[in-house]
Amino acid sequence: MRTSAQNAELALLLEVAGTPKPGNVDRHRDLDDLRFEHFLAGAVGARDGLELAADGAAVGPAFERAVSGMAAQQGGNTQFGSLLLLVPLVRAAREELSQPVVESVVRETTVGDAASFYRAFEHVDVAVDDPPEDMAALDVRRGTDAIPALEERGLTLLEIMDRSVPGDDVAREWVRGFERSFAAAERLADADGPVADRTAAVFLSLLAERPDTLVATRHDEDTARDVTDRAAALLEDDALETDRDAVESFADDLVARGINPGTTADVTAAGLFVALEHGAIAP
Amino acid sequence: MRTSAQNAELALLLEVAGTPKPGNVDRHRDLDDLRFEHFLAGAVGARDGLELAADGAAVGPAFERAVSGMAAQQGGNTQFGSLLLLVPLVRAAREELSQPVVESVVRETTVGDAASFYRAFEHVDVAVDDPPEDMAALDVRRGTDAIPALEERGLTLLEIMDRSVPGDDVAREWVRGFERSFAAAERLADADGPVADRTAAVFLSLLAERPDTLVATRHDEDTARDVTDRAAALLEDDALETDRDAVESFADDLVARGINPGTTADVTAAGLFVALEHGAIAP
Repeated sequence: MRTSAQNAELALLLEVAGTPKPGNVDRHRDLDDLRFEHFLAGAVGARDGLELAADGAAVGPAFERAVSGMAAQQGGNTQFGSLLLLVPLVRAAREELSQPVVESVVRETTVGDAASFYRAFEHVDVAVDDPPEDMAALDVRRGTDAIPALEERGLTLLEIMDRSVPGDDVAREWVRGFERSFAAAERLADADGPVADRTAAVFLSLLAERPDTLVATRHDEDTARDVTDRAAALLEDDALETDRDAVESFADDLVARGINPGTTADVTAAGLFVALEHGAIAP
Repeated sequence: MRTSAQNAELALLLEVAGTPKPGNVDRHRDLDDLRFEHFLAGAVGARDGLELAADGAAVGPAFERAVSGMAAQQGGNTQFGSLLLLVPLVRAAREELSQPVVESVVRETTVGDAASFYRAFEHVDVAVDDPPEDMAALDVRRGTDAIPALEERGLTLLEIMDRSVPGDDVAREWVRGFERSFAAAERLADADGPVADRTAAVFLSLLAERPDTLVATRHDEDTARDVTDRAAALLEDDALETDRDAVESFADDLVARGINPGTTADVTAAGLFVALEHGAIAP
């Protein structure tokens, strides 16, 4: 019987192992400077922060600790977004891993949690968009320098997340009761076969559903929309079953073009955690 | 900066990720009922026992805990032998990770440690040979039933290991000052490229060096010798660099024939741990 922190770490590992996961590092693909081994080390390093959350620590400090441990490898940002979903989910699992409970966990976050969130950006470079003009003082890329402005405005971590939507589908999970994470868990449960295959199927279904916000941030909305349309066409054809080569080609093409749907991977990892906790998948 | 327990868990993950690792589960190969995901879950589950060792617990109880956590997945025995090497190495790293220190760690094991070792066999099926006639009462497959006989004879865990040589090259490490584990770490340090590639190279070099004792146990000495000869020929040709397809074919052939050089993988994992601790590799 694994603990919640163990399941969260395992979710990170299973996520990166799933293949084909178009555009991202997976069991069969590395990017130039971001390799499979960096994700393994990132998952191992994140565990202490996940254990803090499981032990009842506040979400912000547990997240900062998880990110700082995750960042102790050479690949850079591997799992920042995944941890931003996993930490409140692990915290909720202390009581009950359900949408209402995780909603109450994020509703109870404080200005202090928001400050920890800003500190987490000191550990690793994260791709984010420019904030709206009235939020410039709260640009997360300012890291700890933004904390005085944050405290002056008295914004909680949930309020920070609320201001990051639209444009960041990890933040959207926070304000929408982690609906896609729980939906992903249900799809993982309903899928067949080894966990790695289910992971690939659920990743594709998520990618087909909404344009990936990390792709939109790093490239543009049109690129993100195009990736989603292609994923939707493959899903429609049940291509993982009927024409796996087409999915592999799509994956190779996105990797070659440097298009990495990282937000979709984050939601996949969150779904894996929920499914592991609920015993719906059991590697 | 990772802790020793984190490095040991990461060593397990890097070991299984290395490819091609002829005959074994690797980043590109699953066996029928033993898949990559089982090794991921095994590594995550082992961590608590590794932390016990890092905190100074006795080798036997830490090992039993690591095995019990490792076994909490559906694939069966994934990393029993690796943990039998890693636990004393982690324990040694509290003081200094060197051959003399790990030799003193195993020399200080007690009858109690041996009892824990026997209890560990209750958690998982491990492939072992029939013991010599005078050791029948101490057949590890008897698990806890063998403990009274063990206590009557007053054998420490090191003495049990000593009686398992020849025929078990994990036990041989215990009585030979972990010489191949430390040699593997040096080779990992001297190799080039990503850790996953170094792992594959060092695995092949170890396989070429001595017949794998798990292959000899599950099949026979001739099969183990043949595998080593083929590995030596590939190594001689520098095939990982000059003819990678030949190594991949060798890997596929062994998998197809159910020949899994698990002991060589165990020594590789131990080498990875030593190299990580010494900062000789840093994913």
